[in-house]
Amino acid sequence: MSEKLIGAAIFGQSGGPTAVINASAYGVIRAALDAEEITRVYGAANGIKGVLEDKLYVMDEEDPEELKLLLHTPSSALGSCRYKIADPEKDDTDYKRILEIFKKYNVRYFFYNGGNDSMDTCNKISRYMESIGYECRVMGVPKTIDNDLYGTDHCPGFGSAAKYIATSCMEINKDARVYDNGMITIVEIMGRHAGWLAGSAALATAFGSGPDLVYLPETDFDMDKFLADVDEVYKKNGKVLIAVSEGIHYADGSFVSEAKTSATDGFGHAQLGGLAAMLADIVKKHTGAKVRGIELNLLQRCGAHLASQTDIQESFMAGKVAVENAVNGINGRMIGFERVLKDGKYACRTKLIPLMEVANVEKKIPREWINEAGNGVNHQFIEYALPLIQGEPDLPKVDSLPRFCHLKKILAE
Amino acid sequence: MSEKLIGAAIFGQSGGPTAVINASAYGVIRAALDAEEITRVYGAANGIKGVLEDKLYVMDEEDPEELKLLLHTPSSALGSCRYKIADPEKDDTDYKRILEIFKKYNVRYFFYNGGNDSMDTCNKISRYMESIGYECRVMGVPKTIDNDLYGTDHCPGFGSAAKYIATSCMEINKDARVYDNGMITIVEIMGRHAGWLAGSAALATAFGSGPDLVYLPETDFDMDKFLADVDEVYKKNGKVLIAVSEGIHYADGSFVSEAKTSATDGFGHAQLGGLAAMLADIVKKHTGAKVRGIELNLLQRCGAHLASQTDIQESFMAGKVAVENAVNGINGRMIGFERVLKDGKYACRTKLIPLMEVANVEKKIPREWINEAGNGVNHQFIEYALPLIQGEPDLPKVDSLPRFCHLKKILAE
Repeated sequence: MSEKLIGAAIFGQSGGPTAVINASAYGVIRAALDAEEITRVYGAANGIKGVLEDKLYVMDEEDPEELKLLLHTPSSALGSCRYKIADPEKDDTDYKRILEIFKKYNVRYFFYNGGNDSMDTCNKISRYMESIGYECRVMGVPKTIDNDLYGTDHCPGFGSAAKYIATSCMEINKDARVYDNGMITIVEIMGRHAGWLAGSAALATAFGSGPDLVYLPETDFDMDKFLADVDEVYKKNGKVLIAVSEGIHYADGSFVSEAKTSATDGFGHAQLGGLAAMLADIVKKHTGAKVRGIELNLLQRCGAHLASQTDIQESFMAGKVAVENAVNGINGRMIGFERVLKDGKYACRTKLIPLMEVANVEKKIPREWINEAGNGVNHQFIEYALPLIQGEPDLPKVDSLPRFCHLKKILAE
Repeated sequence: MSEKLIGAAIFGQSGGPTAVINASAYGVIRAALDAEEITRVYGAANGIKGVLEDKLYVMDEEDPEELKLLLHTPSSALGSCRYKIADPEKDDTDYKRILEIFKKYNVRYFFYNGGNDSMDTCNKISRYMESIGYECRVMGVPKTIDNDLYGTDHCPGFGSAAKYIATSCMEINKDARVYDNGMITIVEIMGRHAGWLAGSAALATAFGSGPDLVYLPETDFDMDKFLADVDEVYKKNGKVLIAVSEGIHYADGSFVSEAKTSATDGFGHAQLGGLAAMLADIVKKHTGAKVRGIELNLLQRCGAHLASQTDIQESFMAGKVAVENAVNGINGRMIGFERVLKDGKYACRTKLIPLMEVANVEKKIPREWINEAGNGVNHQFIEYALPLIQGEPDLPKVDSLPRFCHLKKILAE
């Protein structure tokens, strides 16, 4: 245990929203407010941009009961950004400004909540502060529905997104089989480079009402094989439900979604339709069947009403543990999850991963969890994902509608 | 009270799925199984088509506990159809076949669950049976997320759809305001001729996180005025959330969605994108802002996980009361809802509406519930809709995923 480091803390949120990113925020903010080493807790408006622009909200001024509602409020309550910070060796302008702000508010703790890019930001800030000898502890709190962060069993945000996708596919499947004529339904799911989200649609199938076919970015997509797969199921059942990851690509690496223009007689309009609509068009021409393309919308990442309680608790824990470790002297680490069996049941404990190792690396579904034909996942994926979607949160509601957190957002001066 | 009519009952489901159509099915089936006048309960496969094709499932053979799960299983469990039956005066082929089946199984009760078209079917069958002197009681059970049936305060299915739409808009609104750059989001909502569903998005606004602008089919759409509305909000807030009904139309009656081809430089492809995508394209060109079009998918009609408990209970009641009235001698009526105040609180009681009056009439939002500018609804709409979305169902789940009803579907011989 190192000596006590006394000073203020900044917390920031970065990257795309999730249903539980604010649960991590609450973990950090609550623990930081409670830590005697931390003199003041600032929330950065729109992530690192808020630091650069000196827009910091004073979390000490917020109502504790209101802060607790962060556990069930989707999307980044403090605002987010997609700001890519330069390499400090190449251009240290941003870092000098960050240091200036850190000094202005005597900031000694920096907690950053995000995905790959955010861990890269974290890592660079940590290295810079070390290089110039400013004592400061920088910790990463993971967040991504994509579940593609390296070194952790899974990522906060994934379980809730997976639960939304699985539940939605179960319901869509019911809807898609209601008439006695043929019907093919294609559901497009987020995930540009890794198929964890699209794979989660298979949970619906495992529970009796889900897709017949699932296509992931982990394998190469072949249009002819895809159409043959669809034909086979359609001939057998007269109904087909297909889940596709937005990131499916051909063997040459090009995204299927980008081939749109040529696939629709040369007049496809990139703005007008996504992958599901394009595949629906192709399948319709091929089979003559009634085909419907559905793009699961933003709710797959921000549908707090279908959040996994396990995910909420773990996301909160990730934030809390980041603060606890920082005040205990840890620096330059991301909180990761380790899956352990406790009395034969799933349990999750945290671990520390050097930021250096996490930044800019992507974790994909192991090939052996995907079936040989590349059109589905096997029991190993189901066993992996199922514990992560467990538990129903007790959502605060007013008149049966969600009661989200309202922060006062008082700016630091 | 008329004399007892002893015989079998057929129940059928028609039209598009809802989250609670099976709650009405359970109301009918349970009450029919319990009624001593009813000797056997048949569920028609795919509505009236199942009657015509002699495909009837024996409900008496189903496990009562499994049947109870119908309360929380979305989409038509018996299958649906969109079969338009002829006028009996013009072509009585179908009616002769229906009579044949009724006689074969000694059917004396016919319950049909659906929207406008289904009440028309009901009405025609009722009239035909009367005209040829076959004693039979025909009752309509309303169902439509569109909420456009005449003579009833509201329709089973609407409350759950409204709750899904309001909750989703609250969450989408959180997601759409996360970055500090400008963002315009357009959400397309079902409802071809009436705006009850799109109007429900305003519940989200009433609860602090919803659309700034709402466009309904009840008023004429004007593209220039729409763009001016968007400009105004965008200039003020930098963020705009817009809810549009799929049925918005110009003053000449043409659907905005159908003008797509000309609005997108002549190469729009009807298959590839809906109204939201098309409006997003126009707004993007007009404002230069980042614009996102979202089409709320099938879940708005089949999202049982966000069903209103009030809607479930009322849907069940509609089915049950239809059977109770039929065995008591009522014929040719649809069950309607009447809103009453009980100790100052919303309550709902059933009433009987002649099928003749309901068939093929559409109920729209009163103009005085829509604001003068035609881009939002007022407090009267909110007060109307809010009681209908109340209550959280206790969804049966296995491993945190819905446990839907599995019927044996044993065919009658």
